[in-house]
Order: sequence, then structure tokens, then C-alpha cells
Amino acid sequence: MPEASANIGVVGLAVMGSNLARNLASREGNTVAVFNRSRSKTDELVAAHPEAGFVPAFDYEEFAASLQKPRTAIIMVKAGAGTDAVIDELVRVFEPGDIIVDGGNAYFPDTIRREKAVRETGINFVGAGISGGEEGALTGPSIMPGGSDESWVTLGPILRSIAAVAEGEPCVTHIGHDGAGHFVKMVHNGIEYADMQLIAEAYDLIRRGTGKTPAEIADIFADWNTGELESYLIEITAEVLRQVDAETGKPLVDVIVDQAGAKGTGAWTVQTALTLGVPVSGIAEATFARSLSSHPEQRAAATTLPGPEGDFTVPAEDVDAFIEDVRLALYASKIVAYSQGFDEIRAGAAEYGWNIDLGAVSKIWRGGCIIRAQFLNRIADAYNEAPDLPVLMTAPYFAEALTRGQAAWRRVVIAAATSGIPAPAFSSSLSYYDGIRADRLPAALVQGQRDFFGAHTYKRIDKDGTFHTQWSGDRTEIEAEDTH
Amino acid sequence: MPEASANIGVVGLAVMGSNLARNLASREGNTVAVFNRSRSKTDELVAAHPEAGFVPAFDYEEFAASLQKPRTAIIMVKAGAGTDAVIDELVRVFEPGDIIVDGGNAYFPDTIRREKAVRETGINFVGAGISGGEEGALTGPSIMPGGSDESWVTLGPILRSIAAVAEGEPCVTHIGHDGAGHFVKMVHNGIEYADMQLIAEAYDLIRRGTGKTPAEIADIFADWNTGELESYLIEITAEVLRQVDAETGKPLVDVIVDQAGAKGTGAWTVQTALTLGVPVSGIAEATFARSLSSHPEQRAAATTLPGPEGDFTVPAEDVDAFIEDVRLALYASKIVAYSQGFDEIRAGAAEYGWNIDLGAVSKIWRGGCIIRAQFLNRIADAYNEAPDLPVLMTAPYFAEALTRGQAAWRRVVIAAATSGIPAPAFSSSLSYYDGIRADRLPAALVQGQRDFFGAHTYKRIDKDGTFHTQWSGDRTEIEAEDTH
Repeated sequence: MPEASANIGVVGLAVMGSNLARNLASREGNTVAVFNRSRSKTDELVAAHPEAGFVPAFDYEEFAASLQKPRTAIIMVKAGAGTDAVIDELVRVFEPGDIIVDGGNAYFPDTIRREKAVRETGINFVGAGISGGEEGALTGPSIMPGGSDESWVTLGPILRSIAAVAEGEPCVTHIGHDGAGHFVKMVHNGIEYADMQLIAEAYDLIRRGTGKTPAEIADIFADWNTGELESYLIEITAEVLRQVDAETGKPLVDVIVDQAGAKGTGAWTVQTALTLGVPVSGIAEATFARSLSSHPEQRAAATTLPGPEGDFTVPAEDVDAFIEDVRLALYASKIVAYSQGFDEIRAGAAEYGWNIDLGAVSKIWRGGCIIRAQFLNRIADAYNEAPDLPVLMTAPYFAEALTRGQAAWRRVVIAAATSGIPAPAFSSSLSYYDGIRADRLPAALVQGQRDFFGAHTYKRIDKDGTFHTQWSGDRTEIEAEDTH
Repeated sequence: MPEASANIGVVGLAVMGSNLARNLASREGNTVAVFNRSRSKTDELVAAHPEAGFVPAFDYEEFAASLQKPRTAIIMVKAGAGTDAVIDELVRVFEPGDIIVDGGNAYFPDTIRREKAVRETGINFVGAGISGGEEGALTGPSIMPGGSDESWVTLGPILRSIAAVAEGEPCVTHIGHDGAGHFVKMVHNGIEYADMQLIAEAYDLIRRGTGKTPAEIADIFADWNTGELESYLIEITAEVLRQVDAETGKPLVDVIVDQAGAKGTGAWTVQTALTLGVPVSGIAEATFARSLSSHPEQRAAATTLPGPEGDFTVPAEDVDAFIEDVRLALYASKIVAYSQGFDEIRAGAAEYGWNIDLGAVSKIWRGGCIIRAQFLNRIADAYNEAPDLPVLMTAPYFAEALTRGQAAWRRVVIAAATSGIPAPAFSSSLSYYDGIRADRLPAALVQGQRDFFGAHTYKRIDKDGTFHTQWSGDRTEIEAEDTH
């Protein structure tokens, strides 16, 4: 058995795991034990990176023996049954006080279940969301760990050493207990879906509305990236739109099949929000836009359905104003998407008893992850000023941006409806904005209908109690037990 | 022990169960055994309805003994753990070949689980969705039974005897095996959510756009109910809008608190659709509109957010045209909602191996249930003519209605965006329409972004294979393994 020379171990050495291990090894003070089910991956990694000083292990016993106590290991395997199998092995060879970290994209209820089961053994289990893809894993991801306070004492310094750094601060914080980290990572991905769909709609409106080429639109996005929209996603959109396919000479975006894939985290975000009763309509529309795109047989059948008469082209003299309208609409819709996402985190924290600092969450997203953006500082400011803010978009900075942008936003939604260019996320965000600020909603009529057909009862604006109109009788109102 | 004199039994005698038992007893050929956990409910029901000839039972042994073989019992208890407890008792006293029917609002995965467990004993388990509320249970509901073919031989005639009748046909059909019935009932409720939200938006637009009173709008809905929108929900909307509160003299709809409640089936429909990859955006927006309405603290904070400048009022000379636009927009959006719902049923059938006749489903919704409407005959026609229709809205009848309505639909969505009146379901339905008929979607850009930040790869329109651009390298394209 080797001596216990490593302070951290990584199990699972596919690209993400290898890169994370290399990142760990490159930081002062870390010695990294590495283990993979098939020996060849371990040998290759150790041979390719002698500078890393990896401590290779070839079975779980050896891996455990190579780790200083409290043993700390990060699992980087594909989420699912494989994770459970690795956890079982680590529980077998670890001791009370040791720390098992799941760095995969686990669904948070699984993390809650695993944390509860592992805790019985005295070992700490930490579900940690890691964002930033392969490159982030190597150079500095945004990390969202859950788990116990005890585990954070050991794990905090290690994760801080490898996280992305934004304005001098490492992009990692202890999110909350058990599944809190994976929950927040899930919502991060949901927001990412919305952000990407909004950008795609902006591109589509400009392209179909003005006839500009992808390369010209790349310039527009590059310009937007110097202002309040500055973000990684806007930056890479310019890069993608500028790319020319070597084979055909066409813009790459015109060569790519227009069916967007998904790996499930957008759907999880919306499913969880439905259970929590949080309207995340922008994220839902973005998720559905991907599934709509991925049904070619339906789309082929539907091409015969007519659009508006006549062509839609923005007059040349209005093109600049239209593009500025789209920019403002994108920013306003983006605020709605983040507001809905933070709403879900707040509701999740209340439901699962997590003490989540929303400002801290926004700060660790400033670097390393896909939705990194300057804009997140404004969210941190908003929650620092008013930790109990009922809804993010009402914070002064965002309210000002929405006020400034709303007329343009309306013009863009109108242009989409007029022209027949689909803009589900822009439209949905505006509907949400107009819904949440409404003095009265027609939900009162819905309550009346529900009382009519199902005796579901209703409340009155002028007194307490629960009431029912005897619709199939003499239509007088009675006070009802609140059982429906 | 009593002699086996009853051909059908009911367990659970709250309002729904009592009414269903009375409905059963009123039909030629049925003798109904009744049982409730607390004896008083059974005594009350039997005493109140001597004409029914109920066979009361006071424990499960007696209940089983009172039933002819194969024993057939319908459970009418609140969905959840109570259902499992009753099933356990019935399994204890029933024999192979007997039939247990769950007539509650079970979540279909629970029904699949229960069917599988009960089948082990040789007893049949049937999950049956029953729609129509308390009145439907008494006078004739729409019934959506799942379960085995064997159970349907006995159960079919009994359920046909009590179901609503539409144009001479009983509103019941054997939907498919195990959870198929509760699945279809779930989607029925999801469509109901969308239908109600669309009606609510139509009302709100007319009220805020024209200043008409609820009573005047009741007349408009009553008029609509004589045309292609004819349906129970349009009919009762007129009734609700016409209702005057006795206490204040105001329209009742103005006295009801504008926070719409929900019992979960809308959320289930959307959650299931997300797993199946079916875009049910209209149902999602309707569900989220209810949850948005039910967060008064957020709405209070958001009232400071500004709407458009100036008042929105439809000029007097345009009021009739505006109302006709709203009618057409409502019809078009309704077609989208049903199209999405049937899409989900088709996807569910494929996923769970159910052989569901979509035309038959639409026909049993013509009577008894909340979404009953003439319109459902057109859906049956569409699926009879083309059982493999990829998407309902492309059937000739619906394509014609959408073609006829789309200009009005666009004007209504534009009016909503212009005026600041939220119309999330109208807007979302139009976006879906424009999305599904689009030649190209910006999903291609989303794929490009995903390839950039996560090496998720993409397909090309001009050749087979899976590709990746080496974005952080020399930006050449390579053929990739399709592993992401």
C-alpha cells in the first residue's frame, strides 16, 4: 500500500475528470490521487502529465490508502447508476469523517437521497455542481457545492484553489446542505437555456428582418458585447456567426441542422419549478423551442401552414433603430429569465430548508461558467441591498432597465407577430412582465369557472373566508369549508 | 355473510363516490354494493336513496361477499396513500379474475406501479380517469379506463351504462393498458387549463380594450357559444360573467380574488411532456399564469413597473372587429392547445407501449367532461382520415381555421403587446405556430453555441455524420463520435 501522500483524489478520468485532476495538481499545496475503473486511462494520464505528480491508484483500497485523512475524493463519472456504484465502493474503503464529492450533473433529489444514505456511515457526501465544461474544468470552473458544514472546512480551500476567479474572488461558495449545490447548478443550466434561446431569437429577427449576413450579425453581437449585454454567450455567438464552413464557403450556421439537442437539465428546471409553483415561463419556452426544433416530421408537415401576407423587411432607414430595439428587448427578456431563475432558487431553498445567499450565487457565476457576465454583479448588488427582495426584476437597477427597454421590447414582439418570425421567449417574457405588474388578472374568472364546474370555491376581495355560489341551484352564495 | 347479489361495488362514499354509486344504481341491470371506511356515510347514503336498492357492506369481507364473480369494485377515494390502503384490503378479500378500478385522479406512474403489483395476484387493476365533477358522476361522466383487455369484458358494459352520451355514443372507451387511462385524463386536464386561460385572456382583452362590462361580455360569450367555439367552458363563462354579487351589486368576477388555484394535473401534464420532449407551451403558459397569479407579494412589489405610455382603448367604430379578432385568436389558440395535447398522448402511447386510438379519445370527450365541445368531432374526423397525422393542426379542417384566423390572431397578440395586457397563452400559441411552420429555425445557432462551449457536436444539412469545430484550436471541422 502507498503512503497517504495525496490531499485530494479524483475518480473517473474521462475528459472532465482528467482536466479537473490536472487543474488540482497545478495548484500550490495539492497532491492528487487518480483512479479510473479501466487502468489504461490512469496510465495514459500519468504518462501524459509527469509535471502533475499524480499518485495513481489501481483499486479502491490503494486509492483510499493514498489519501491523507480526512480522505477527500471527487467523483467525475457520468451521472446515474455509475455514480451510485462508485459511491458504494468509496463508502466501503473510506472512514467516518472522510468526504465524497459528486462533481457530476446529478439531479438534486438523487443528491439528497445519496447524502442521507452516506451520512448514516459517518462519511460526508457533497453534491457539487461544476460548470464550465472541459475547458472550465482545466482552467477554472464555477463550483456549486452542497453538503455539510464539516465537509466544507476541508473542501473549501481545495475548491477555492481551482475555481475560476472573478474580480479577485474565487467562483465557489458553500451553497447549502445536501442537494443545494446540484439544485443551483440545475437552475444555472435552465437560465442558460433561456439566455441561448433569447440570443437565437435576436439573431433570427435581425437576419430575417434586415437581411444582414451572419458575419454582419457577428459584428453586431461583438458590439453588444462591449455594453450592458457583455457576457460569454454573446461573445461566442459572434464567434459562431463569423465562422465560415471550409467545405461550402457558406456561413457555418447555415450548414448546421437546425435541431437543438438537450441533456435534460432545462427540463428538470421547469419540472421542479412546476412542483414549487414558480412561473419560469422563459426557461420553459426555451426548452420547448428545442424540442419543437427536434421533430422534423412535424415541421415538414407544418410547412404548408401560411404565414402573414407579404414580405417583412425593416426599411433601410429603420434598420439601426430595429437592431437597437432587439438589443433592448434581449436585455429586458434576459432580466426576466434571471429573475425567474432566482425565484426558483429562493422557492427551492424555502422548500428544502437551505439557507442560500442569492447574492453569493450570482457572484460565483461571474466566472468559469457558461452564463458568466458582468450583469451578475448587479444581481449581487440587488440582493445585498434587499436580501428579501420578492422578485429580482423589481430591484432599482433592473426596474430602470425594464422601464428604459419596455417600449422597444413591445415593438420587437409586435414585429415578430407581424412578420411570422417565432419569438417564443421574447413574447413569453413580455407577457410575464405584463402579468406580474397587473393590478387585476383574469385569474378571477378562472376561479369563477372552477367554482362553477367543480365547486372549488373562491375567496372574496372584501372579506375573509371561502365562498361558493350554488350555480346549479338558486345561485346564492354560501360560505364554504376550504376543502377544495 | 350476504349473498352475492351485486354486480358492481363502490368503495368510498364522499360526494363523487356517492354520486357514481347512485348513477350506477339508476341504470338497468346494475345492483350496487357500497362500502365506506366510516359506517355513518354508508348508512346515510342507503337511507337517503332507498330507490337505489344499495347493498351496504360494513367491512371488506362483507363487501367482497356481496359481489358476484368476477367481483368488480370502483375505488373513489382521495388520490394518494389512501388509494394504496384500499387496494391492499381489496386484494386481501378478492380472488384472481376479480377487478379493482381506481376512479380517482391518480398520477399515471402510480397507476402503472399499482397495476403491475396487483397483476401478480391474478386480480385485474384498472386505473380509470373520470371527468365531469360531482354532477358528471351523478348524471354521466366521461370515463377513461386503462387496464387489461380481460377486465374490459366485464367492465365495458357497466361503464357504458353510466357514461355521458354524445350523439348516441357513450363517452367511454378502453384507452389502453395499465396507466393509459389516467395518462389521458391527465392530458385532458392540461388541455382544460389551456382552454380556461385562453378564455380568461379573451375576456381580459375585451374588457380592458373596449370597456365593456362583464354582463356585456357574457352576451358575447353566449353568442360565441352558438358557433364554432360552442363548448361547455364558453357556456359557463357567460354564466359566471353574468352573475351579480348579491352583497355588493357588483359583477361577481370583480369580487373574486384574482388568484387561481390548481390541483396539480396541469403541472403533471407539462412535467410529463418535458420528459417526453413534447412542446406543450400553451398548457405550460396556462399553468404558469395560475402560479404567477398566486404570488400576491411579488405582484404587489411589481405594480411599480411601468406599462406602455398612454391608454389603450379600441376606437368605438373598431370594437366589433376587435371582438371578432379575439374570437378568431381564441379559436386558433385553442386548436394549438388541443394539437399539443394530442401530441403528448401520441408520444406517451409510443413511450409506454399503449395502442391509443386518438380519434376515440376525442369522441369520449364530447360529453360529460369539462372540455366537451362540438369541435371534438373535427378531431375525430382528422384522426379517422389520417391516423398517423404528425401534428393535429395540419389536418385540413384545422389548417383552414388557422389560415382563416391567423391575421386576426396576430392583431390580437399585437394589441396585447401594445397595450400591456398580458396574453401569455395567445402569444405562446402564435409563437408555436410560427415555429413549427418555419423553414429554418435559429436552433442551428444554439447547436453552434453548444458545440463551442461544450463540444456537443452538430449534424450537417449536406451529409451524414456528426461534426465538431475545433473552436479553441485552428477552427477546422472534424468528424466526431456521436457521444454527447
